[in-house]
Amino acid sequence: MAVETLRWRERRLELLDQRLLPERIEYLECRRALDVAQAIRDMVVRGAPAIGCAAAFGIALEALRGETLDAAFDLLAESRPTAVNLFWALERMRKALDARGAGALEAEALDILREDLAINRAMGQHGAALIKDGARIMTHCNAGALATAGHGTALGVIRSARDQGKRVSVIANETRPYLQGARLTAWEMVREKIPVTLITDNMAGHLMSRREVDLVIVGADRVAANGDVANKIGTFTLAVLAQRHGLPFYVAAPLSTFDMSIADGSEIPIEERGADEVTGYRGMNWAPQGVLVRNPAFDVTPHDLITALVCEKGVLRDPDREGIARLAR
Amino acid sequence: MAVETLRWRERRLELLDQRLLPERIEYLECRRALDVAQAIRDMVVRGAPAIGCAAAFGIALEALRGETLDAAFDLLAESRPTAVNLFWALERMRKALDARGAGALEAEALDILREDLAINRAMGQHGAALIKDGARIMTHCNAGALATAGHGTALGVIRSARDQGKRVSVIANETRPYLQGARLTAWEMVREKIPVTLITDNMAGHLMSRREVDLVIVGADRVAANGDVANKIGTFTLAVLAQRHGLPFYVAAPLSTFDMSIADGSEIPIEERGADEVTGYRGMNWAPQGVLVRNPAFDVTPHDLITALVCEKGVLRDPDREGIARLAR
Repeated sequence: MAVETLRWRERRLELLDQRLLPERIEYLECRRALDVAQAIRDMVVRGAPAIGCAAAFGIALEALRGETLDAAFDLLAESRPTAVNLFWALERMRKALDARGAGALEAEALDILREDLAINRAMGQHGAALIKDGARIMTHCNAGALATAGHGTALGVIRSARDQGKRVSVIANETRPYLQGARLTAWEMVREKIPVTLITDNMAGHLMSRREVDLVIVGADRVAANGDVANKIGTFTLAVLAQRHGLPFYVAAPLSTFDMSIADGSEIPIEERGADEVTGYRGMNWAPQGVLVRNPAFDVTPHDLITALVCEKGVLRDPDREGIARLAR
Repeated sequence: MAVETLRWRERRLELLDQRLLPERIEYLECRRALDVAQAIRDMVVRGAPAIGCAAAFGIALEALRGETLDAAFDLLAESRPTAVNLFWALERMRKALDARGAGALEAEALDILREDLAINRAMGQHGAALIKDGARIMTHCNAGALATAGHGTALGVIRSARDQGKRVSVIANETRPYLQGARLTAWEMVREKIPVTLITDNMAGHLMSRREVDLVIVGADRVAANGDVANKIGTFTLAVLAQRHGLPFYVAAPLSTFDMSIADGSEIPIEERGADEVTGYRGMNWAPQGVLVRNPAFDVTPHDLITALVCEKGVLRDPDREGIARLAR
């Protein structure tokens, strides 16, 4: 049942090609750091923790070939700018290299992968305590097994709640432009027989106003030192809507997502992607020639809109600078 | 330059087929009320004022054939439930029939069409006073020439501001699932050389938070007696976001959109459309089998989130029951 987002086979990295879901399950083989960087950029693999794991294997691949690694580190660091797990994983690989040499890097990447799965299961346990029986849970983008080494962050919390015997249902926002909600979250939930209802992003407020949502839970691409959260574009809007309707707004993110060097969300770099994602989908174009396009891939949710932050150490209610510092210690 | 949304030629109604825009300009000929009802249901023609005009011609077509009209009235009234202009136009045709007989109905439908254009120009004049030089104006769905007999409601205000010499630019939300923003609003603006930037619906909050939006203006499908407004799904969310960011939120709607029989927005029937609009687009499907779908086509914005309502009589600030009653008198 479980799907492997990344797998390490015969010293090659195989990435589930998420661009093809839900139609086809196909793995893309990466033999070089360059392949991994391209796969990250093209969104073959996406989701902050999964990107971190993939980057670690990118370094391991070069190490196994006996290449010098500086170029590989640079290449991978430039693949995508917002999710900090990428830089966290590269930093960890750098430290392993310095401490134990290139021969230790394959094992280090495998450790990162295994640890991420364990972290997601721990987050799931902590977060499940926030979920009541019968909860109708709205989520955005895909913070599931496909965004991680397995189990998922936000969807991991939902899975763990279900595993505890709670009856839960999911409302998945489709998440334009890349449709991770429609293609990935809906697919994960259908596979596990968790009831899932797909809506377009602009329907979230209406469903809340009609009292059809009990809580919102999302993942994160970077958490600033004050608790501000960068996550997939549209997340901020959901937090504003949740506040208006008195609904809890939860963020599930491992400590590898925390960036203590960033004071608040205004300093988080926001990736701006190409126009073709907005003017259509998969080669279909529905916008007129001559239109300008913006395509910020992420937005920032201020910490005061976040009811609680779930990480592997537990649940932090009303996240702020002091609480984040305590967790990150 | 101006496009004709509906035209009456040789006693037949020709509707610009808006499903084909922006790729092709094609007119669909309607010879019977049944054709018109089907065209409204299938969104060949959409937008509250344009639907009202089309329905009036649907009755005129039957009258010209010498048919009894009760079935035609019923058929058209059942085509779409939320926009009240449909019922307003049918009521007006019924009164003309009772007062002056079937022979008067062609002229009555033509009057409705001409009046709608004049009303839009009047709204444009009143509303343009709200627009400052250099304004970056966000709009949702299409409340343009394509939604009316011409000029438009919300886009009519933008056009009139531009005609007064103000430099304005437009941010068009794509408006899933039917993409009226990407396909229709962007197309109208590009044709008139008004700078227009397309975004996905979930980017609106981010742009507001970065101070890239000066005001929001939308149309309406029905205005309740207390000033609550039903409009395209996603409108409510924009109003909540505008309030958070201290931005004016304007609604442009002719008096034919007002429904004094409805006390507040909770009583407005919200059309729920088919799942296939949400699971994909134009025959392309991107969601997995087994997913549930919701597809409410409209939502309700409470009057306290509306800075001002623009109609042909002028601008009503802080719309409420008393103000609406004054206008509707």
